[in-house]
This record gives sequence, structure tokens and C-alpha cells, in this order.
Amino acid sequence: MAERLIVIGGDAAGMSAAAQARRRRGTDDLEIVAFERGHFTSYSACGIPYWISGLVTDREQLVTRSPRTHREDFGIDVRLRHEVVGIDLVRREVVVHDLSGGVEVRERFDTLMYAAGAVPKKPAWARTDAAGVFGVQTLDDGSALRGWLDADPQPRRAVVVGGGYIGVEMAEALVRRGLSVTLIERGEQPMSTVDPDMARLVTAAMRGLGVDIRTGVQVTSLSERDGRVCEVVTDHGSIPTDLVILGLGVSPNTELAAAAGLPLGPTGGIRVDRRMRVSGVPGVWAAGDCVETLHKVSGLPVHVPLGTHANKQGRVAGINIGGGYATFGGVIGTAVVKVCDLEVGRTGLREREARMAGFEFVSVIVESTSRAGYYPGARQMTVKLIAERPSGRLLGAQIVGWSEAAKRIDTLAVALWNEMTVDDMTALDLGYAPPYAPVWDPVLVAARKAVDALAR
Amino acid sequence: MAERLIVIGGDAAGMSAAAQARRRRGTDDLEIVAFERGHFTSYSACGIPYWISGLVTDREQLVTRSPRTHREDFGIDVRLRHEVVGIDLVRREVVVHDLSGGVEVRERFDTLMYAAGAVPKKPAWARTDAAGVFGVQTLDDGSALRGWLDADPQPRRAVVVGGGYIGVEMAEALVRRGLSVTLIERGEQPMSTVDPDMARLVTAAMRGLGVDIRTGVQVTSLSERDGRVCEVVTDHGSIPTDLVILGLGVSPNTELAAAAGLPLGPTGGIRVDRRMRVSGVPGVWAAGDCVETLHKVSGLPVHVPLGTHANKQGRVAGINIGGGYATFGGVIGTAVVKVCDLEVGRTGLREREARMAGFEFVSVIVESTSRAGYYPGARQMTVKLIAERPSGRLLGAQIVGWSEAAKRIDTLAVALWNEMTVDDMTALDLGYAPPYAPVWDPVLVAARKAVDALAR
Repeated sequence: MAERLIVIGGDAAGMSAAAQARRRRGTDDLEIVAFERGHFTSYSACGIPYWISGLVTDREQLVTRSPRTHREDFGIDVRLRHEVVGIDLVRREVVVHDLSGGVEVRERFDTLMYAAGAVPKKPAWARTDAAGVFGVQTLDDGSALRGWLDADPQPRRAVVVGGGYIGVEMAEALVRRGLSVTLIERGEQPMSTVDPDMARLVTAAMRGLGVDIRTGVQVTSLSERDGRVCEVVTDHGSIPTDLVILGLGVSPNTELAAAAGLPLGPTGGIRVDRRMRVSGVPGVWAAGDCVETLHKVSGLPVHVPLGTHANKQGRVAGINIGGGYATFGGVIGTAVVKVCDLEVGRTGLREREARMAGFEFVSVIVESTSRAGYYPGARQMTVKLIAERPSGRLLGAQIVGWSEAAKRIDTLAVALWNEMTVDDMTALDLGYAPPYAPVWDPVLVAARKAVDALAR
Repeated sequence: MAERLIVIGGDAAGMSAAAQARRRRGTDDLEIVAFERGHFTSYSACGIPYWISGLVTDREQLVTRSPRTHREDFGIDVRLRHEVVGIDLVRREVVVHDLSGGVEVRERFDTLMYAAGAVPKKPAWARTDAAGVFGVQTLDDGSALRGWLDADPQPRRAVVVGGGYIGVEMAEALVRRGLSVTLIERGEQPMSTVDPDMARLVTAAMRGLGVDIRTGVQVTSLSERDGRVCEVVTDHGSIPTDLVILGLGVSPNTELAAAAGLPLGPTGGIRVDRRMRVSGVPGVWAAGDCVETLHKVSGLPVHVPLGTHANKQGRVAGINIGGGYATFGGVIGTAVVKVCDLEVGRTGLREREARMAGFEFVSVIVESTSRAGYYPGARQMTVKLIAERPSGRLLGAQIVGWSEAAKRIDTLAVALWNEMTVDDMTALDLGYAPPYAPVWDPVLVAARKAVDALAR
């Protein structure tokens, strides 16, 4: 009889694992059943803001692989609208609730892949029955929001609470749809994923697009009228609105895992080893937004819910389930985002993170351009480097620019991954031609300035 | 009395060296005199094609620092139109010909910085007195060409001989000016700086723009009429033309150096040590297009005339002349070029170079996109990796794409610089967001395919 793999969660991590396991083991050897409580599999959650804004016209474009593809091309039995509501590690069974049929069944497994993703953070004030309050975590969430935006009466005003990646992307998406948008940020500035001196460039760009940004403001409650949200009440007054977006970040979706006794780490994510095995629980694997992972620079566990990690981790788990050997090497905190045509990239540690990890460091910021100054279309680019003192080892980098900026963070990410010092970096042989860079690439200019700062 | 530094050549390498030396030593301590035979200092030779095409409107935009800036802000005595015609290492003097005044003087030096750059390769057939034959090496060359293009009668046809970087950039520039352009390439394809399977994408793009590309064709002579070039004669017939561009590459400009007994290496470039000291000749330094340098991957000396190296090497020489310590770490062959909106990047070794260096290797090519497939503006991107067998160490990489492609080579350049294996590379934490990359960055997709190829 074939071994039976059950996958909880039909998005990036779970379906990557399933596909990799299948690549190595045929249907005679390994039966794969995946349960997904939503209506979609293998979609790009990161693409939702662009579908909301209208930049991506068709929801189906966000779906990489349909259940039918998984079934017919990969022999993976995907069951949509099936929510796993219990894990019995002793009997090796999951309890599954069929959301369409309403029945509950138990399904046997030999191997379990836990890939339940993340859930939007919901503070007490956000737990309301009023309609018009949306997370943007799943494609079902996105569909509900699109339904609300297209329904009669069409909403004209929106409040986005929280200025992380999803918050700023959604604020922009809604402005581009013609809504009047207020973004509420508890801290000093939105985009706290970069240092304040870099984040202020983003704040300025968003204000330029017409987003009403209110910082240092905390939401206390939501008011409703006729069952619909109508007002966001804050410690600095009330804001009337037709809808509310929760952009407060996400938490690992571990309710089921915790109930079954899977180990959780200090970040709240499931603890896994290098091969994505759930630590100490034989035959159970986990990957994606529900796990915590190692930050290679700080050496600390972190929860970084990004599709790129989910795909890599799922692939690693699947190779191992398939009988191969793969490990996940950890993360260094690389991320890029587009905000109002401004491009933002980061890798490694921010100043605050570096301080918390116990590093001593210097920071430098340089202004340069994306192309040779004389070449048409050259735009400003700001590069920040954080380097350990006195070793000079690169600890973190941030880039903000108007074009061709964000992906340059990869150059710095690879330097950081290899533990280069800023002094080593000044020698790097990077591509130069006037349409693409000044003769001293902004990355090199920044490295030189960091070397000078270390010498002082 | 102040030490006296004489700089031969007033462009990137020479003036970077002068500026760095000045940063560390005041005018009381170090007198700096720079001789430049042309009319300009510190300009971007790489920008000339864009000024020819009209994309850059003003020649002065290409000049980073004028002689006046050098003089007033840096205390560097720059003498334009002064050609050094002899070096006397025993008497520590240079013989200088004042091209405007016609006089010749001898100038004493304590320290000599040789930065005479490169000269266009001129086969026998190109040594003609006929007007209308141009190299594109210096800004004076560029000015002469612009003069020819703007003069009456305006040329309508051009022949570019040689399909390297300068050749393809000039072919495009002239097409954009409205000329009918033929490009003659002796080999199978232009852009032999990448492998043939990548170069054919460039050939197709250039033909798409209307460049008449003739490959496997060799020029045998030039015909002239009334002192002007009128025809390029080849082994496959003649091509009538109004001007000829020499795009056959450049050679280190070492005539003077050789006459003075400075050591030349196997590439014809001056041999220098890690600090840019001319090997075995005390007090003499060299940098830029006239020197040969170490290729870090092949371990062989190479001549790579690029502004980015000239600037870095000049800086290193200048820091050392100034009493500091710096070394030049060698090159890995990174280069980017824009051809007819196609973006081309390379780093490390091509297949042929890898073979010549004695490596065994596998090559893989993947097709991916610059952005998430569903994000507007996603364009095709082709990535090629060459990895040592069996170690998996990255030896070379090439990228061709339609947008946001070229500078991604830097990610691979840094990986290669750090001697990463393709297996290590699959774990890299690179930036992901739909406007900038698919969830599996093209670089990662290529690394995965290379790992598979190595396993076969």
C-alpha cells in the first residue's frame, strides 16, 4: 500500500512540497491528498493589491496551478473548501470539515505536511461583526474586498490600519481605484521595515499620491451603522469611512498545530529543523508562513511571511519527503516593495535590529543615480549601509529610488549572505554602462563611504 | 621641496589617481602635473555613442571634471594638448610635446603615473589617409565623428567594422540618427562577448532595428574618392558608404611605456602588482586601459578596457601614491550593454574561456520573466549559467532580456566573486515582489537547473 501524505494548506508551501515529493515518488509509492479551506490553490497572495487596483485585470491570472492541474498533471488529490480542524498524532489522522457539504470526516496519514500559512493580526477593536472590514491575506479575502468595492453603493472612502508592506500597497491600490484613503500608523512612520531616515522618503511619496497618512495614531474601536462599518475611532479623533483594511501584519496560523502539540518557537511560528521537519515529531513537516526560521545575520529565530520563503521551504520539505536531501539555509531579511512608483529594497538588519542583536556598527547614506548622470532617465537613488564596527562586515542595506532601484538590493543581499566586509565590497566587479549605472555604481559608492566611516 | 608626480593621460585612471593622491597629500607635499594630449579630461568615453545618437544632447555633459575644476578644487596642474612623447627613467624626466605651441620640453618627476589608455586596433586595411574613418576611443574621436555627421553633405550610409560593444552601440546610434548602417563581423555573430546561443538574441534585435548585419565577412581594403572613404571592400563584395567606424576593439596604449622599458605582459598591457605599481620599476605606477590585470576566475592575465576598472585602479594607485594602502583585487569579466532596447549582461567566463582555462563544466539556459508573469510589463529574460563539474562552482553567467535584465548580472557577479556553488545559490534570499520578479527569481531558477544538470 502506498504511503499517504496529507498536506494542510493548498498554497505556496504546501503545494510546492507536494509537487517536489511527487517528482521523486510515483502515485504507486506515495498518495498525496491536500486540503485547502479556501477556493483556490497555488496563487500569488502578493499579487492581490494589483488585482484590487485593477493593474491585474483577471483574478485567474494570480493562480499558478489550479486543483485540476494538480490532480491531472501531478496526481495530487486537492480538496478545496476542506478545512482541517484537528490533528491526531497518535492515531495518525486529521479531522476534516467539508465546508460545502457540512460533513466531518477523519483521514489517515503516514506523513503530514503542515502549511496552514498565516492569519491577519486582529486586535480586540477589529473583532467586529460589521461588514466592510477586510484582511488581505488570502485570495478569498481579496475576492471579498473586490466584491465590496464593486457593490452598490460603491465605497468612496477607505481607512487602512497599519503601514507595513500590505498596508502601503493597499493604500496605493485603493487610491488608484479612486477612493479617498487614510492610512493610520501607530508608529512614527509607515514602512518601519526600513529605518526612519529611509522610510520618510516613502511617506513623502505616498502623501504626494494623495494618501492621508496619520502617524502616532492608535485605533480604539470601529463604529457601525446598519451592520456596516462607518467610522474608525482613534485616540486622535474619528475618521468616517466606507471600508477598513487590516494591515497590521500577520501571525503564524498555528492554532491547529498548537492543539496537536507541535512545538512553537518564541516568534509563535512552528519550530522546524534545517530539513523542515517539525522538531521532535516524526513524519510531520512544516513550511511557509506558519513556521519560524533562522535569521542568518542575527542568529535569532524570526517569522518572515513571504512567498519566496514559502516556496523555497516547501520545495525543501518536498525533496526530503520524496527521499532526497535538501536543507533551508535561513533568511537574511531581503524584501522589496513598490510604493507609488518609489522602489524600496532592504536586506539584513535595520539599525534597530542590529542594536537588538548586540552589534556595534556604523551607518552611512549616499545619494547617487540609477544611470550615468547624463543618460536620460537617470533618477535619484539613496543607498544606506550598516556595517559592523570594527570588522567592517556588512550587516544590512536599504535602497530607495525612483526606478531600477529595488532589485539592486540583491547585489547587497549576496554580499551580505557571503559575510563580505564593506572594504571587500569596494573591489566588486559590477556591471557598468551609462544606461544602467554611473561609473561608480551606487553600491560601490556606499561601500566606500562605509569604509571611510569605519576609519574615523 | 615637494615631491613631483607626473600623470600621463587625463582621463579616468590618471585623474582618479591624481585626485586620490591629493586627498591624502597637500600641495606643499606633492606637486601634481597631468599631461593630456586631447582637449578633455575626466570624461565618459562610454557615453560617446549616446552623444552621437543624440540621446545625450551636449558634449559637456560627458565631462565629469574640467581642467579648471582639477586645477582650482584639487590643485592639479592639468595641461591639455600636451603629449608625452618620451620617458627617461634614468634622469626621471618626461619629454612633452605641446601640440598647440609646437614646442617640446622636458619635465622632471619623482613619481610617474602612466595612464595613457588604449588605442583602437587598426589592421593594415584601415591605415588610410582618406577622411571619414573613425575610431570611437576618445572624446576627440567622438567630436571628429560628430563633425563629419553634421557636415555638408550629410552622410547617409555607414559601415561599422567589428561587432564588439563599441561596434553594436555605434551601429545603433547611427541608425537612430537616420543613417543606413551595415555592420561587418568576421565571426559567426556580433557580441562575441557572450556565448553564441545568447548572442543570437542580440543579432535578431539589431536586425529588427534595421541594421544590416553581415557575418563571416572580412574587410580587405577601403576605397576612397576625392580623399574621402567611399567603399568598404570585403571578401564577400563591396559596400558603398559615407563613413567607416572602427569597432575592432582596442589595444593598450603602451608605445611610450615599451620604449622606456616598462614591462609588458602577454596581453600587451603593462604589468603591475596588486597596488598598481609597475612591476620592478620603482616610483612608476600604471592603471586603466593600458594595463593588464588578473582574471580571478581563470587566474590568467587579461586586458579589459572598461571605465569602471580604470576608475578603481586609478583610485588604488592614488591612495598608494598618497601614502595609504589599497590593492586592486582583479576582475571577473562583468559587463553590461544596451543594444536596441535589449539588455545584455555577463560575468565570469564564457564557455570558450572556461574551456581555454581548463575547466570542465555544465551550461544551462532558462527562460523566465523580469516580473511576476501576471504583472504588466513582464518581459522575457534569458539566463545562462556555467558551473564547474563536479564542484558546482559558478564560473560564468549571462543574461539577455528586454527590461530590468542587465543589472541582475551583479547578483551573479557577487555570487561568482565569492566562489559560490550553484547549489548554495538556490538558497539565496533575493528580493521578491510582483513588480520586480517572479516568486522564483530567474537567477534562482537558473541555479536550480544547473544543480539538476550537475546531478545527471
